[in-house]
Amino acid sequence: MLSWLQHYRRAMLPGDISAGIVVAMMMIPQGMAYALVAGLPPVAGIYASIVPPLLYALFGTSSTQSVGPMAITSLMVASALAPLALPGSALYGVLAAQLALLSGAVLLACGLLRIGFVANFFSRPVMSGFTIGSAILIAWGQVRPLLGGMPPAVHWPSAAMGLGALALLLWARSWMAGTLRRTGLSPVAADIGSKLAPMVVVIGATILVAAMGLDARGVATTGAVPAGLPGLNLATSSAHWQPLLQPALLVGFMVFLISMSGAQALALKRGEKLGSNRELVGLGAANIGSALSGGFPVTGSISRSAVNFAAGANSQLASIITAALLALALVAPTGWLALLPLPALAATIIVAVLGMLDLSLLHTAWRYDRADAAALLATAAGVLVLGVEAGVVVGVALSMGALIWRASRPHIAVLGRIAGSEHFRNVDRYSTETAPGLLMLRVDAGLFFGNVEAVNERIEDELKAHAGTRHLVLVLSAVNSIDTSALFGLGELNTSLSQRGVLLHLAEVKGPVMDRLKQSSLLQALNGRLFLSAAMAWDELAC
Amino acid sequence: MLSWLQHYRRAMLPGDISAGIVVAMMMIPQGMAYALVAGLPPVAGIYASIVPPLLYALFGTSSTQSVGPMAITSLMVASALAPLALPGSALYGVLAAQLALLSGAVLLACGLLRIGFVANFFSRPVMSGFTIGSAILIAWGQVRPLLGGMPPAVHWPSAAMGLGALALLLWARSWMAGTLRRTGLSPVAADIGSKLAPMVVVIGATILVAAMGLDARGVATTGAVPAGLPGLNLATSSAHWQPLLQPALLVGFMVFLISMSGAQALALKRGEKLGSNRELVGLGAANIGSALSGGFPVTGSISRSAVNFAAGANSQLASIITAALLALALVAPTGWLALLPLPALAATIIVAVLGMLDLSLLHTAWRYDRADAAALLATAAGVLVLGVEAGVVVGVALSMGALIWRASRPHIAVLGRIAGSEHFRNVDRYSTETAPGLLMLRVDAGLFFGNVEAVNERIEDELKAHAGTRHLVLVLSAVNSIDTSALFGLGELNTSLSQRGVLLHLAEVKGPVMDRLKQSSLLQALNGRLFLSAAMAWDELAC
Repeated sequence: MLSWLQHYRRAMLPGDISAGIVVAMMMIPQGMAYALVAGLPPVAGIYASIVPPLLYALFGTSSTQSVGPMAITSLMVASALAPLALPGSALYGVLAAQLALLSGAVLLACGLLRIGFVANFFSRPVMSGFTIGSAILIAWGQVRPLLGGMPPAVHWPSAAMGLGALALLLWARSWMAGTLRRTGLSPVAADIGSKLAPMVVVIGATILVAAMGLDARGVATTGAVPAGLPGLNLATSSAHWQPLLQPALLVGFMVFLISMSGAQALALKRGEKLGSNRELVGLGAANIGSALSGGFPVTGSISRSAVNFAAGANSQLASIITAALLALALVAPTGWLALLPLPALAATIIVAVLGMLDLSLLHTAWRYDRADAAALLATAAGVLVLGVEAGVVVGVALSMGALIWRASRPHIAVLGRIAGSEHFRNVDRYSTETAPGLLMLRVDAGLFFGNVEAVNERIEDELKAHAGTRHLVLVLSAVNSIDTSALFGLGELNTSLSQRGVLLHLAEVKGPVMDRLKQSSLLQALNGRLFLSAAMAWDELAC
Repeated sequence: MLSWLQHYRRAMLPGDISAGIVVAMMMIPQGMAYALVAGLPPVAGIYASIVPPLLYALFGTSSTQSVGPMAITSLMVASALAPLALPGSALYGVLAAQLALLSGAVLLACGLLRIGFVANFFSRPVMSGFTIGSAILIAWGQVRPLLGGMPPAVHWPSAAMGLGALALLLWARSWMAGTLRRTGLSPVAADIGSKLAPMVVVIGATILVAAMGLDARGVATTGAVPAGLPGLNLATSSAHWQPLLQPALLVGFMVFLISMSGAQALALKRGEKLGSNRELVGLGAANIGSALSGGFPVTGSISRSAVNFAAGANSQLASIITAALLALALVAPTGWLALLPLPALAATIIVAVLGMLDLSLLHTAWRYDRADAAALLATAAGVLVLGVEAGVVVGVALSMGALIWRASRPHIAVLGRIAGSEHFRNVDRYSTETAPGLLMLRVDAGLFFGNVEAVNERIEDELKAHAGTRHLVLVLSAVNSIDTSALFGLGELNTSLSQRGVLLHLAEVKGPVMDRLKQSSLLQALNGRLFLSAAMAWDELAC
């Protein structure tokens, strides 16, 4: 805990300070916008950006991770609470905090139980599909605030401001960094500068509202923001704990997945090592902290963390500085925040989630592995059609389904001997010799419940194709493990072959696999023999 | 379809006839008993034993499978319908048929979509745990009918009959085959004879009820059985379709799993090949047939199929004969069935499910792979604590969890050269030489989303442990596949190593893996080289 503090060097301070300031300026409009996505008052997004990063700095492992509100988790909050309370109501805020508390407890428990491997239940294509589907859902949800109404019933002053802000932000996204570079800024500084565009646009829009009295003309604004720091929120409504349990599991799972995928990309850049179980604890603590300070579920944001890193963050001190600045912003007069126009905030959300519409993985998968591309598209469709929570379940099901499907088609080669050598190769790929009555098969996959039937079926096929086989040699050089299901499968194969007068031999069993097999009765029951190498089996059995 | 009929030989007839008769005599008490487990009138169990095997004979692939009511699916019916209707009510019967219809439709759809691989979502230990948990639940549910009430409030005449029947059946189970053998019967005939004990006990108990007027003394009986064949049941209650959807998915999944595990064991004995997709179609048709003829979900019964096989069944004709005999039994006077005492039926159920309490897999797994044993016990506990439906979900989650957990701990060996040879081995197991600045790692698992992070983490650890590494060679001789997630993982590793001045090389890439990689940009982006063998990499890079 806080090991980064022990190794802190003064040289790291300037980077941490500049990153802290940059991320704070990015966080204010983003936190408020994501609070709106979650159906909460904008100030909740600021609350959720103060205590959580402090607790993450205490317990987490990534040095540059920026923990706070994030688009997808906010969408999940809105989806989970929609059937339970009215957005904007006091109950809604309490439930959002409770959802963070439960999600945090789930994360903390998983971390203490050391089951960080659950992050592996999502493949990357599925994660990409989930992100794309969520981004589209979020953007679609912002059309109404952007235009002040659904087309054709738009509110023109709101729409003008929203679309103007959108155009500005899109320009900033594509061209601002280049423009800044041409003024003499370094590429990194120019890139960071372009990331502050949302802050500039939101402040400009607020000034516009104040100067032109646009709020009186019907442009929706965030309304009065209570000044001061949030108090502890321990209100509980026991009737609502139970329906929150399942969403809390799903939110906790996604909080972990989203945070890890961002943190891992950065850790790889720094040659840093993340502890997935300590990450779980850090994120759990952050969410519990968010719950207790008027916030809602938080996670590590990929985009914000990348800016933090690029702006020079060397340690979690950068996040602590960000939190301190946000706390200061709440203590300072917040009256001006009341005039912040929702159409401009909607524009920042839409541009932010555009960054999540990354089709490069789809593009690669389409060429490399069509099944992965199909899983990506199906997950995105699942999110869009069934909603974000069902989308998580669809994603897990597709990841596991693809895994089991692939496993059920193991590669099995019939081996022959390269004449005059001790080498054995696939008879379909090489010119080899075989011996009558001897069938040698190499299974190119670990044996486990997912492929045991497929392997048995394939063996039956090969026995049919090689009538008169008296010796079946399974060459296990590529078999890294044999689970209990496969152990029974081999035992049944042995019995079945015995009845048909075929001897079953094993060759090239790997060390760890052999250690295991010695704990079973398979080796004693085996009707054939155990050979160290395929060549030895050939010498003994070929005639 | 009906391909077995084309190959039918007269020599197969006697076996089919004897098996047909034996299974019919086994089916009558068993079908009625499992109908009671499902909360249905006993005659529904006979109905469910007539049309389904006929349709299975038409569409299925196993020649000796006996399709009809089964203990676990009956338990699932009771569990699914409990919140929807009162057992014994007309609505309950309609819903049971609808559940069969939906399950059948699910199975049929899966068969036509050719996704028979879904059976691989359950590992054998998990299946064993599920069966054990279900058997205990079923036996526990029979305590009340066995004793005529829950202890201490038992109905003594009922309890005397129930416990007497139980003692007789337990004796028959353990000793009757031996006794019959001593009278000169062949071992097989003696074994089959002992399987007819339930029929004998049930008939005896019925005679006892009739002779002593036990029904008037409060011993519960099945009550009047409507004579005649069942009519088509097309009644629908649309309000109940929706809550039946999820149970139908779970029931369909278990119908397939239970049937396949039994059929596969028999197919292996006969050297027969099952088509899992055609099995899905056969079971789907059987369940739809059951729905349309007053039945409830059916599946292939392991114990009945084994008797069918042992009694000489050579083809599906045996099952057709069984169905014909059962239809005859319904056409014959059925008045005597009304006096069939429930305590005796409860005794047959308890003894039948005792056969499902097979602890041998637990025993083997405990020695061979403790994690598999834990999954078995956890699934059994899940069924007992959460119920049979949640138990299916727990089983899938545990199977997949174990898979992902194992995948997240891939075996990776640091390789050294056996001095003076071209062989490379694990430095921890063999005496080898290594070269400064050169790190060779062999990954003993296919690379996929489940282990990509673990592999990257392990590589970072080894790079830390081998400071000064300039060349990292990944020896992929045991890597049978690389999915899209792992492709991205390798790309990121390459980028990360480039930044640190380490070259990433690949060696011994398998043919099918290389074919795939050529479709990606990894090979062009690779900062190091591609070597055919580890020895070539050593010759080039060691200094």
